[in-house]
Amino acid sequence: MHLNPTDSLPDRKLRSRVAELLVVRASGHLEDQQRRYPRWELSNVALEQLLGRGVGGVILLGGSATELQQRTAQLQRWAQHPLLLCADVEEGVGQRFEGASWLVPPLALGRLYNQKPDRAVALAERYGRCTAEQARRCGLNWVLAPVCDVNNNPANPVINVRAWGENPTTAGTLAAAFQRGLSSAGVLGCAKHFPGHGDTTSDSHLDLPVLPHTRQRLEQIELPPFRAAIAAGVDSVMTAHLLLPELDRNQPATLSKTVLTALLRQELGFQGLIVTDALVMEAIAARHGAGEAAVLAFEAGADLILMPADAEAAIAALCEAFEAKRLPLERLDRALQRRRAALQRVIHQAKPETTISMNVDRQLEAELVQASLTTRSTAGIGAATGINLIRVDGVFPCPALQGTAPARQLPEQWGYRSVVIHGHGVSPWQDDPEAPLALDRLGEGPVVLQLFLRGNPFRGGKDSQEPWKAAVQQLQRVGRLAGLVIYGSPYLWEELEPVLEPHLPAAFSPGQMQEAQRQVLEALLEKSGSSIAPGDFTD
Amino acid sequence: MHLNPTDSLPDRKLRSRVAELLVVRASGHLEDQQRRYPRWELSNVALEQLLGRGVGGVILLGGSATELQQRTAQLQRWAQHPLLLCADVEEGVGQRFEGASWLVPPLALGRLYNQKPDRAVALAERYGRCTAEQARRCGLNWVLAPVCDVNNNPANPVINVRAWGENPTTAGTLAAAFQRGLSSAGVLGCAKHFPGHGDTTSDSHLDLPVLPHTRQRLEQIELPPFRAAIAAGVDSVMTAHLLLPELDRNQPATLSKTVLTALLRQELGFQGLIVTDALVMEAIAARHGAGEAAVLAFEAGADLILMPADAEAAIAALCEAFEAKRLPLERLDRALQRRRAALQRVIHQAKPETTISMNVDRQLEAELVQASLTTRSTAGIGAATGINLIRVDGVFPCPALQGTAPARQLPEQWGYRSVVIHGHGVSPWQDDPEAPLALDRLGEGPVVLQLFLRGNPFRGGKDSQEPWKAAVQQLQRVGRLAGLVIYGSPYLWEELEPVLEPHLPAAFSPGQMQEAQRQVLEALLEKSGSSIAPGDFTD
Repeated sequence: MHLNPTDSLPDRKLRSRVAELLVVRASGHLEDQQRRYPRWELSNVALEQLLGRGVGGVILLGGSATELQQRTAQLQRWAQHPLLLCADVEEGVGQRFEGASWLVPPLALGRLYNQKPDRAVALAERYGRCTAEQARRCGLNWVLAPVCDVNNNPANPVINVRAWGENPTTAGTLAAAFQRGLSSAGVLGCAKHFPGHGDTTSDSHLDLPVLPHTRQRLEQIELPPFRAAIAAGVDSVMTAHLLLPELDRNQPATLSKTVLTALLRQELGFQGLIVTDALVMEAIAARHGAGEAAVLAFEAGADLILMPADAEAAIAALCEAFEAKRLPLERLDRALQRRRAALQRVIHQAKPETTISMNVDRQLEAELVQASLTTRSTAGIGAATGINLIRVDGVFPCPALQGTAPARQLPEQWGYRSVVIHGHGVSPWQDDPEAPLALDRLGEGPVVLQLFLRGNPFRGGKDSQEPWKAAVQQLQRVGRLAGLVIYGSPYLWEELEPVLEPHLPAAFSPGQMQEAQRQVLEALLEKSGSSIAPGDFTD
Repeated sequence: MHLNPTDSLPDRKLRSRVAELLVVRASGHLEDQQRRYPRWELSNVALEQLLGRGVGGVILLGGSATELQQRTAQLQRWAQHPLLLCADVEEGVGQRFEGASWLVPPLALGRLYNQKPDRAVALAERYGRCTAEQARRCGLNWVLAPVCDVNNNPANPVINVRAWGENPTTAGTLAAAFQRGLSSAGVLGCAKHFPGHGDTTSDSHLDLPVLPHTRQRLEQIELPPFRAAIAAGVDSVMTAHLLLPELDRNQPATLSKTVLTALLRQELGFQGLIVTDALVMEAIAARHGAGEAAVLAFEAGADLILMPADAEAAIAALCEAFEAKRLPLERLDRALQRRRAALQRVIHQAKPETTISMNVDRQLEAELVQASLTTRSTAGIGAATGINLIRVDGVFPCPALQGTAPARQLPEQWGYRSVVIHGHGVSPWQDDPEAPLALDRLGEGPVVLQLFLRGNPFRGGKDSQEPWKAAVQQLQRVGRLAGLVIYGSPYLWEELEPVLEPHLPAAFSPGQMQEAQRQVLEALLEKSGSSIAPGDFTD
């Protein structure tokens, strides 16, 4: 990785300019051994070397907001030139970094828009502002949001509740409001995933989805939210790893000149940064080497290359392509100009503040939960010796149930022993389609059922294979369902709600955060003189 | 909580001097809502007020090492006078604060001492130095260790592997070596729990244990490690919440003048700080109000009051006792002198370093694991479609299994699906003493069994009720035990090892950290051409 001493000065200069196009992946933690995805997150030695050689951006994941403050300052010190520092904080900084605000998924506001459009728009703008303010306090200057995909396909495993709407108008209006919020706080935004990832049923993290739509259909459904975000001044657009054979029969959008240059740059007139989605994703990585993927993306019209599978290979291949005149140097000049112009728009803070989350942020978090809650029949869960059955995706870690989570603590105070079901636990299922829950494994008494379930990447169809409808019917049949809460997917709620007995206490919250748990359970649990036992004070 | 404007100046001065004696509890996180034990951890408003009124110390728990750096700086800013900043980091700073080094429990070196005394002593000193260096980098100046209790009772639910030895010589020699390590790095130590908590079978977090020993017996077993630590210059001694009727039939050690003044101060000649164990613990809190407990402790001879159940009440009661001359003011002068003298011994760092854990620390962590590992039969676990059955205490959170834990990942790469058993999961047990594991709930194939189990406070006898011996015999009987690892308790290992079939791959590691998992599993798993699947890169 060291500079070759025989390199001529122009070579080095080209290489450092090319390196500016790259956005590499790092953990938000400070220590190498804390990395949660060490296969994808560069070591500190590699990071320092790449940033020293001119790499221009870093995408961060993992750690607390306080750690992120230190981390971004450290990366910026290593770089000696202004960095683009970004994260996938679509649902507030707290979605990825503990201690910051974790907000309800965008689709919650998409649903609210149908009843109260003005309120939804106002909340979306505050949502963007809160995310940007906190990102800035953590040292980030680029938020990889808003999602501009229209989730018109409930079976979509990867977009789902991340979308701002299920129709183009809602999605576009709210994405634009969110972007205004970002801009007002001096942080860059990113409309994704161009030209629209909402109508897919496969996950581009795992495979290359194919979208059969014509140009005309795109104009009706997929493109309007991107047009709205662009009109609102969005600073960057992220490409989708989707094959659209009607537009380009050979290359996915990320590598397609037709999609990036002809459609996005020329027809839609987008003047900002075009950034690829992560090139390590299987949809790209399974088909092209790291160097060639970067060259193809840049050739198609991208300015920035996100998470190349091998940064050194990407730099080398791009340099070679410029030297061989496969790529014109004017494209490089233009991409770097756009990058610099974007950096000039972000507000640099002299000194990071210690406090990330302000009262106004907590107020917004609570308001969003409240505005998106559906309660069907309330205050009916009484104290009893029973089971608090909670379903989560995983527990290493499980942000929703950490620490003093109301979803565990409140039912426990009412007498319900928590039993947590997750992919790595003992199975609660038995081989009986009519009675799928193995009740003998759970214990006696009434069951408060809480399902944390939403579309998640990398899970394929696993979530939807769990027979929750039959399980709810089974529990009702034996008279043991005391209450039901769904945190996350409106589609699951719409599937289960119709089979519930008339007066069964039940609720749906799009948000899974502890504030949502508190609001839901305070509505469903009967007010009773529950007393809190003294409890542990250390671990 | 505001100052009463009618207070006279002398009142205020006394109150602020009394406040210096207190050590209150705070979370290591920066934000109130991140507190894991909000019942015990003061809010930031309350902390800032108490520190502003002169409270002299804070004990911290929770958060990452990086957060702790920011947190200690913040507390010190609020105080405007030098604080004692401490934590229960008996097993390295990483035991409580992620990102720092988590070292094997002290008893591992106690066992090593029986074979290689010089090596054990050298490692204990490096252990102390590593803990102190990292504590200092995080802004702590007081490490609440070494434990000087002699764990001569394997059923001890609260000391157990936290002790440096099972006999007085080993415990004293290693505790003194650890203390030398602390002193060499300029951080205060604390010998605990005086006069010796090793021979109890009940947990003082939950109840008041009674120790029937005579003064003569204490001289033989309990006191030598404290004498050794005092000779090594330990800066403070923490009292035990134990009733020793042969010494004082009325008051537990923490509140006993006989124990603290006559025995520790006069007979043992200890000149440093005497600090109570947490006064919120049930052994004290169930018997005395917050104010009276503080007065009784100070009257008995304590200098510092740790975690009073109510800091304001403790200050008020102490002031009243001084004003009423129940307590002589000379005692206050003397306690404050000792506190100031201790603070003068700690090295203040101009600026905290970003990096907490150095290469030399990681080297020590690995060496300690290696020196304390017992492997019985190695390299026998081959690739197979089976179950990786892991038992842990809990999962919210589970530091041992977080992120890329080898205990999960390595067996998974060899084909074993992880199933994690914990107190909040679906039960793996059935009602059959000869075959207690409900194998139908776990799935098919050979089982790699990994038990994370060690003495833990607040659990009572829960851990020892799990029938692991019968479960191991059951798995062997049906020919399904592929391997066994115990992380934690040497006593469990000694119970299970004799029933293992002759060539069964099995190992014991006192440490539960990921470095221990890596070393154990690399020894037990057959070298095979396992390939790592690409895997997730986000959550």
